[in-house]
Amino acid sequence: MARVRIGIYLGKAGHKLGRGKVQLLEGIRRHGSISGAARELGMAYRHAWEMVDDLNTCFRDPVVETATGGRAGGGASVTALGEELIERFHAMEETVASAMAVHLEALDARVAERER
Amino acid sequence: MARVRIGIYLGKAGHKLGRGKVQLLEGIRRHGSISGAARELGMAYRHAWEMVDDLNTCFRDPVVETATGGRAGGGASVTALGEELIERFHAMEETVASAMAVHLEALDARVAERER
Repeated sequence: MARVRIGIYLGKAGHKLGRGKVQLLEGIRRHGSISGAARELGMAYRHAWEMVDDLNTCFRDPVVETATGGRAGGGASVTALGEELIERFHAMEETVASAMAVHLEALDARVAERER
Repeated sequence: MARVRIGIYLGKAGHKLGRGKVQLLEGIRRHGSISGAARELGMAYRHAWEMVDDLNTCFRDPVVETATGGRAGGGASVTALGEELIERFHAMEETVASAMAVHLEALDARVAERER
């Protein structure tokens, strides 16, 4: 079955909000740290950090907050805005999937037998 | 203003149909050749050829037909299925843009001032 993915481009610089960043936010929520999320997603810490930094640069308020040092040795948490982004992205994905259903079915009917 | 892009993934192999391939098809229609389209899009001929091949492999019928040799020295044309893909993709983009409008406005309101 055909699938559709969405990418949102924000601000003058066209910061991308897509599945990858949303999965990273969900990982941070689960692990309480960027490094834990990066590990789970098989992503270099540096890359994960840059994705978080890109989100924090794009929006008016932070999307992820980091605490350095202390007993817990740092850690990161998803803010209210970050939670809103996660929820909104999934709502958008669902809206798109249902709005596209007829088109995706029509495309599926055109796909070669060997590819099904 | 926030923008949304869509990518469609087809068949077992997840062949991508996105903006890039649709622009290539439109270029082939305009120029009557893959090389002409590639030149216009600033893309290596090899890359354009692979994109066409990927589409032709994915679907039951060809999306682009090529004529080799002859007086015109080859050339390529977009088939009826190719035309359908172009039209359908634009219809999907419009559907998504209007289905997403409320979400995109809400996201825009969260974007930092300096990024607007």
